Amino acid sequence: MKKEIRVIGIDDSPFSKFRDSKSLVVGVVMRGGSWVDGILSTSVDVDGNDATKKISEMINNCKFKPQLQCIFLDGIAVAGFNVVDVKELGRKTKLPVIIVIRKMPDIDNIKNTLIKINKKNKIKLIEKAGEIIKIGNIYAQMAGIKADEAGKILKIVCTRSNIPEPLRLAHLIAQGVVLGESRGKA
Amino acid sequence: MKKEIRVIGIDDSPFSKFRDSKSLVVGVVMRGGSWVDGILSTSVDVDGNDATKKISEMINNCKFKPQLQCIFLDGIAVAGFNVVDVKELGRKTKLPVIIVIRKMPDIDNIKNTLIKINKKNKIKLIEKAGEIIKIGNIYAQMAGIKADEAGKILKIVCTRSNIPEPLRLAHLIAQGVVLGESRGKA
Repeated sequence: MKKEIRVIGIDDSPFSKFRDSKSLVVGVVMRGGSWVDGILSTSVDVDGNDATKKISEMINNCKFKPQLQCIFLDGIAVAGFNVVDVKELGRKTKLPVIIVIRKMPDIDNIKNTLIKINKKNKIKLIEKAGEIIKIGNIYAQMAGIKADEAGKILKIVCTRSNIPEPLRLAHLIAQGVVLGESRGKA
Repeated sequence: MKKEIRVIGIDDSPFSKFRDSKSLVVGVVMRGGSWVDGILSTSVDVDGNDATKKISEMINNCKFKPQLQCIFLDGIAVAGFNVVDVKELGRKTKLPVIIVIRKMPDIDNIKNTLIKINKKNKIKLIEKAGEIIKIGNIYAQMAGIKADEAGKILKIVCTRSNIPEPLRLAHLIAQGVVLGESRGKA
């Protein structure tokens, strides 16, 4: 595995449930865990269904695409309940996808909420994303890549914390440009 | 000089002269030239007069302020002809300011334009920013810091190119979140 492997980390920005219909999604393209090559962005519907389409378009249309070798997502959903179809994202971009989960989620609680708000179809997407595995200090779901391979990439890109550096930066940027200042744990 | 010196690099985002009345301004807080601590942002009037006020507020209100030791600006103006009063910015933030200039600007040409568009008062701000000095491969104007001191800080923060890394990142972010993809030379 090359130290300079090109990866993209994707995170969404904070939004107001009551005011905003769209949420900014930021992608950070890095070589390994240190050098930022470029910044991408797109906009998705709050609680909508367009995350998979918008994110795969953002990746496929960028100039870094030929070099990219892996996609990192911060959780399986953006902009509230705009759940990413991880397998579909992998198919459309022809790239492995690693969903990084900071804390073990309460899947039953999420499912109950989705049933309550009449978004039962999203449960299938969450189940489709596969088993949640512990790698080092984080949890992850994967598509198109095996756990040992994912572990090797994580070792390269987690330069500053337990979180892959492109995800940490995507989080800081998405917060900073929307709120005026990035907050809390990156 | 500490390798981990905290600095902020500030750049504006692209805008349409015909459509936009505001432009996003992004600040990247780094430790030296490698570790991103946080992202700030504010919004200024296109061709307006609020850059000095907005940028000093952005800096003074952020949680990183007590650690900050230097401000980098990418050119003296943001959002078109929203010229920063560099001395005033230094006074308000109590920090030295280094304006990085990639290419030696054609000052006469800028002055002629400002006269033509009836913004003669901005010429004073440009003149007030002091002499343009060549440091390494770039040009710079300074307030509240001497050239040899500025040279030392530049050596620490120019980790990846001739441009201080916080400025390179501020440029990529400001472009990426507004255009969808960062472009050209960072």
